[in-house]
Amino acid sequence: MIYLDNAATTYPKPEIVYEAVLNHMRGFGANPGRSGHKLAIEAGRVIFKGRELVCKLFNIDNPMQVVFTSNATESLNLGIKGVLKPGDHVITTSMEHNSVLRPIKALESIGVENTIVECYSDGSISVKEIEAAIKRNTKLIVMTHASNVTGTLMPIGEIGQIAKNNNILFLVDAAQTAGVYDIDVNKLNIDILALPGHKGLLGPQGTGILYIREGIDVMHFKEGGTGSKSEELTQPEMMPDRYESGTPNTPGIAGLAKGIEFILSEGVHKIRRHEEELTKYFLDELSHIKEVKVYGVKDASKQAAVVSLNIGEEDSSEIAYILDKAYDIAVRPGLHCAPVAHKTIGSFEQGTVRFSIGYFNTKEDIDKVVTAIKDICQQL
Amino acid sequence: MIYLDNAATTYPKPEIVYEAVLNHMRGFGANPGRSGHKLAIEAGRVIFKGRELVCKLFNIDNPMQVVFTSNATESLNLGIKGVLKPGDHVITTSMEHNSVLRPIKALESIGVENTIVECYSDGSISVKEIEAAIKRNTKLIVMTHASNVTGTLMPIGEIGQIAKNNNILFLVDAAQTAGVYDIDVNKLNIDILALPGHKGLLGPQGTGILYIREGIDVMHFKEGGTGSKSEELTQPEMMPDRYESGTPNTPGIAGLAKGIEFILSEGVHKIRRHEEELTKYFLDELSHIKEVKVYGVKDASKQAAVVSLNIGEEDSSEIAYILDKAYDIAVRPGLHCAPVAHKTIGSFEQGTVRFSIGYFNTKEDIDKVVTAIKDICQQL
Repeated sequence: MIYLDNAATTYPKPEIVYEAVLNHMRGFGANPGRSGHKLAIEAGRVIFKGRELVCKLFNIDNPMQVVFTSNATESLNLGIKGVLKPGDHVITTSMEHNSVLRPIKALESIGVENTIVECYSDGSISVKEIEAAIKRNTKLIVMTHASNVTGTLMPIGEIGQIAKNNNILFLVDAAQTAGVYDIDVNKLNIDILALPGHKGLLGPQGTGILYIREGIDVMHFKEGGTGSKSEELTQPEMMPDRYESGTPNTPGIAGLAKGIEFILSEGVHKIRRHEEELTKYFLDELSHIKEVKVYGVKDASKQAAVVSLNIGEEDSSEIAYILDKAYDIAVRPGLHCAPVAHKTIGSFEQGTVRFSIGYFNTKEDIDKVVTAIKDICQQL
Repeated sequence: MIYLDNAATTYPKPEIVYEAVLNHMRGFGANPGRSGHKLAIEAGRVIFKGRELVCKLFNIDNPMQVVFTSNATESLNLGIKGVLKPGDHVITTSMEHNSVLRPIKALESIGVENTIVECYSDGSISVKEIEAAIKRNTKLIVMTHASNVTGTLMPIGEIGQIAKNNNILFLVDAAQTAGVYDIDVNKLNIDILALPGHKGLLGPQGTGILYIREGIDVMHFKEGGTGSKSEELTQPEMMPDRYESGTPNTPGIAGLAKGIEFILSEGVHKIRRHEEELTKYFLDELSHIKEVKVYGVKDASKQAAVVSLNIGEEDSSEIAYILDKAYDIAVRPGLHCAPVAHKTIGSFEQGTVRFSIGYFNTKEDIDKVVTAIKDICQQL
């Protein structure tokens, strides 16, 4: 099996991730931050260590500003709905995932306005258009770091600066880039960062992260037991407890911590270079197949390791089905939960066949995929 | 180590649970319900199998009414906030966990009224008082099946009938009983059932369940990618997708499914009998130690396997600390995220030392614990 669905979830994970999950469950399966016995304390330590590693990777000053969630969708819902109130205005882009656009559309019903800035057909955006969309009541700019459909990298540094200059909060969805690209929340003026644990960070599914810059008031949407201020019937305001009601996914976080350790030990630059090289090679090879239409910027230095394509007018699901059944190649067809992005790039009806490369893919994988695509083109 | 903190999280889990988590991560680590390739389909199958097993254990008719959440707190927040609107009234009890009381208190700000029916000092409740609290605008009764502080079992059958007769929704928090007691959602007239995956159901942390009876409209609080109706910018109404945005904790659910399989194969009655016997034995032994004050009904047939006690006026945390350090016995002191329950039983300042028994505890464990408690009493 050649796995090229890393934009959905990375697979495989480093061996130490599996081991950490298992060791945690077997050895310290207690409830962190609740009881005071050895197992519970060890569980709490694992989670705090996880927060510290997240800080190291994203240059976050204070581990208590790192919230563990169940996935990036929860992080995005918290970040978006937690700061926007009736009368506010939010700016986003047409390349966003439904985990950004659906919450924003839902907020229309309580009187939160939005502007979805249209991107170019290669998925890129005009910084000027973002700036032009700013209104008196703009509270938040929320956008992806890289499109999950075309991989197109967004100029989050420039837009972060614009947000800062205009006193607007800046929320970045780094679902496609965390663990692979340099993301420094201070340099990039990121106020809120939403991350999945199970993609580039190489952790298990069921983990997500929300970073909230100190001093920003984000409304929580769950109350419950936090193991802190148990005597009070109101949710504690303290970080990160305010957002972490109930028993956390401790084994998942133990695994995620090891995923981040792996990244820190390999180095983000090495991971990125590998993915970029394979992406460049894949794009080069595809450019020689006339039946193939590739979407996006088609420049490995300007996109994450995601390549979306179609073969003639063929249904994307049909091509993905053939790749799976006849060639044992796993990809994802369709709309990738990003319908407006597909409208932007002109593939809304057909969808695209998305190949998403991970750190454990090899040049041989790409060769086999290219051969398979050529085969399919000949047979159609 | 003698682990008696099973009310926080059960430990250890059956070996097949660990194996399922590991095998899932290693073998099928893909994203369920998103792509169509073999790994993704297998991941989707694991989750559906999990829903079916939940149905089997709780006599639920339709697997699509089983929602996977990240923990019981999320399930309770969804169930409580999802049905209560301004002007509604909700009834609950003074023995509830903060995961019930904090959401209910938070709803006061949007005009949802509540009545917290006071329980007796042994944690039991008067069914008549629940009935008397019903008002014209009562929309929901929410209560625990067994107190997490005293183990006291609540008459949910009778109260479910009252709810039904009065056309009021009935939400049960089965955090302390699922997997150990017979819970038939139809017989008990349960409309919404909130469950942790990592307690009596023997699954990993990071898993929870929400059952919603068909036809009940529960508002979701997260929107995002669901892998379904991706072309639409509004959250799909279909079950269970409406509540399951983003990538689920697939390895966790795979483990939880095995936990439930284990329970079904052992039989709930056998599990319950074992826990009841140990609880009875423990209560009997404790009754001979004059320094020990036990809270609750002190009748193993009327309480879950949770025993809360204090030794004289000693601080509960101090006793738990000694048990851990000197005797390697893990318990949980303090307020157990249930301050009103401690007010009800008269231990609000002191807290209690909670011993919570699981299926893997033995009579020898209890003997050692009793010896330790006697020791401590002598030394104090």
